[in-house]
This record gives sequence, structure tokens and C-alpha cells, in this order.
Amino acid sequence: MEAVEDVKVEALTAASQFVKPLRMHYRQDKKDKIWDLVSLHDSVSVILFNTDRQVLVLVRQFRPAVYYNSVPEEGRQASGHVDTSKYPGCSGITLELCAGIVDKKVSLEEMAQLEALEECGYDVPLKNFDHVKTFRSGVGVSGDRQTMFYAEVTDKMKVTEGGGLEAEGELIEVVEMGLQEVKELMAKPEITAPVGLLFALTWFLQHKAPSNTTTTAT
Amino acid sequence: MEAVEDVKVEALTAASQFVKPLRMHYRQDKKDKIWDLVSLHDSVSVILFNTDRQVLVLVRQFRPAVYYNSVPEEGRQASGHVDTSKYPGCSGITLELCAGIVDKKVSLEEMAQLEALEECGYDVPLKNFDHVKTFRSGVGVSGDRQTMFYAEVTDKMKVTEGGGLEAEGELIEVVEMGLQEVKELMAKPEITAPVGLLFALTWFLQHKAPSNTTTTAT
Repeated sequence: MEAVEDVKVEALTAASQFVKPLRMHYRQDKKDKIWDLVSLHDSVSVILFNTDRQVLVLVRQFRPAVYYNSVPEEGRQASGHVDTSKYPGCSGITLELCAGIVDKKVSLEEMAQLEALEECGYDVPLKNFDHVKTFRSGVGVSGDRQTMFYAEVTDKMKVTEGGGLEAEGELIEVVEMGLQEVKELMAKPEITAPVGLLFALTWFLQHKAPSNTTTTAT
Repeated sequence: MEAVEDVKVEALTAASQFVKPLRMHYRQDKKDKIWDLVSLHDSVSVILFNTDRQVLVLVRQFRPAVYYNSVPEEGRQASGHVDTSKYPGCSGITLELCAGIVDKKVSLEEMAQLEALEECGYDVPLKNFDHVKTFRSGVGVSGDRQTMFYAEVTDKMKVTEGGGLEAEGELIEVVEMGLQEVKELMAKPEITAPVGLLFALTWFLQHKAPSNTTTTAT
């Protein structure tokens, strides 16, 4: 997954299916203002907890936007190329909840169900999806809504390897993480993950983590 | 603040200071791929807790991207206009941490210090800023890094009204929120706020909230 080569970045001039830059003109309290934004799809995410093995089911993937942001100014050549021997793909690998954009006319629970199957290989009954919270993924440049679910799964529900849809260019690694590992991760000062994962893990530890799994204290 | 009129949205064609849409070409595991993204500034945010009055200091503001996202497809006229009598500005009002983009060559603590003064009117000593976590604001379309701080403040440090920089078009309302109110907010199924606020409030309640402020139980 980390084998990323031939990176080139250029200004986006063509129409894009996913990134639609817009300019909003408006008057607020009698002052004319302008704000630039992008219109994005709403999304769903799901905290998957395998109760058989007491592990959270998360995903790792290469995220071009994260990679690009990790390359310093001087690493971006005038031609748009980035030297991947100096700036390897691993700096763009994130840890995330199973998630996806809402691009079908089905319920949000059904979208989450689809993503759990596509990304993580779990065929989860709809009734297992409990609503956690609906919020905004961003507020500055994008203002899309994300709905987060919690779903308990068992080994029996694991029907495929997961990994995302190859036809859509997805390359996703399913990661299982025990409670002790989650706590260690949360203790780190920096994490290459969206803040939604931090909220999800904090919420999970507070509301759902079995209480008998505290560290064998020293 | 909610008095928003004459809204018109158009495709962003001019160069924008804040939204730079890019297209990244790359090869991953021997497959050629394309990903569209926007390059954004990194940012800082700060959980401000007034220990004199045991209140969190937050901000409310009108966010065009959130407003736009709250207008359904049929509310966006072909001309780009939005009828604000049908879709009033209040649907674009968010609750957030004091925060700002990193657009000066100073330390992240100094950036957070500047925002605490500009937005909330508190002149906070640098040593009060404790690092909470560094993460990504987004991972799909943007991959910018946000660093979150925690700072305790007192009434003595309140030197101005705050409200943001009018020269930069900012119009920010400072909101004080007691612990009981924070708990009630967190119990709501939907909140017009970035997920970073949810992480911050959960983290605060877990690590910093005075333990003697539990509800007088029924």
C-alpha cells in the first residue's frame, strides 16, 4: 500500500466529480462578504466492535491529501513532481473508522452497512447500527454532515476480506485493535488520523469498552 | 449575526487565497491513480476554561460552507441565488472552539495565544497552553494538520470583548458554557459543530472537568 511513486500535483482545472470549488457572495449585518468553499458529499462512519475477539475494526489507507500536506514547500518541485524517495508514501497513510460518502438513495444505516461490507468484509444486520452522533466534518471550507454509528459484530458476520472496491481505486487494509492498543494510541501526542477517529475512540472507551479490560496495573 | 441576505453561489473560477483545488497523479502498487484535493492551511484550536467561573469559552459564528450544505438541492436556484426567507442564516451558525489558521511564522502556542485574544478577548500567558493532540482536520479532500491546546484562563485575563478581526470580515460571538450545559449538549443526537468540538468536549469532561460538578441526581 505504501508503494507510491510518480507523484505529480497540478492545479485542478477540469471539472471534478468530488471537488466542486464555489464562491459564496452574501450580506451579513449589512456588510457584503465573500467566502470560498467546496461542496462535498455527506458521509457516514461506523465504530465496528468485534465482540468475539474484543477488537475494534478500523481501516488504514493512503490518502493523497494527507500525503500532499506532509510534503514541505521545498519538496514540491516547480514541475509539480514530488520525489518519493525523499518523501515516501507512508507519510500519507491514515488510520480511520470504516466510512464512506453518501452517494446512494438509501438510508444512512444502509450506507453504513454497505461500507462495513465493502471496506471491512462484515455483513452486519441493520438493527445492529446504533446512532452515535451527527456533526459537521468541516466548517471552514466544507460544511458536509457526517453521521457516526456504532455496531457490534461477530466473527460469523465476516464474509469477505474487505479492502474496498478495486473498481473505485480503493486499497484499504483492515486493522483490528485491542483495547489496550487503543489506549496506547490515544496517549500519543500526534496521530495521522482524522479528528473523528479521536472522538470515536474516546466515546467508545467511555461508553462501550468492557470495564474488565483495564491494564493489569503495576 | 444571523442577518444573512442576498446569498449567491457561483463556481469558483478566480484564484482564491484560501481554496486551492489540486489534482494529484500517482502510481500505487503499480496502478495509476488520480485524486482531487484542496490545499489548506494548518490550524490551531484551544479549549479555553475559565476557572473563576467554571465555564468553557467557545465561539459561535456564521459559516458559509455549513449554510450552503444545509440548503437542499431544490433551494439552490439556477441563478445561484438562495432564498434566505426560506433558508435563514441561522442554519449556518456553528458552535466551535476558539481556532484559527496558521498564517504567521510564530510557534503554534503563539498562534493559539493570538486567537484567544482576537476571538475571545483573553490575554493568556504562553505557559498556560498545554498540548492536547495533533491530528488531521480532514483526510479525504483536505489533509491539513490541526493542533489542539488546553488553556485555563481567569477573569483578570479578559482584556477585550473579542469577536474576531473585523478587517478580516470576522463576526464571532463568545459563548460561555457551564459543565451541566456541556453535558446536555453532548447528549444531543445532532450538533451543528465540527467533530473537533465533540472530541474536545469529551476530552475535557474526561480529563479536566471538576469532579464535584456532577448533576444533583434525581
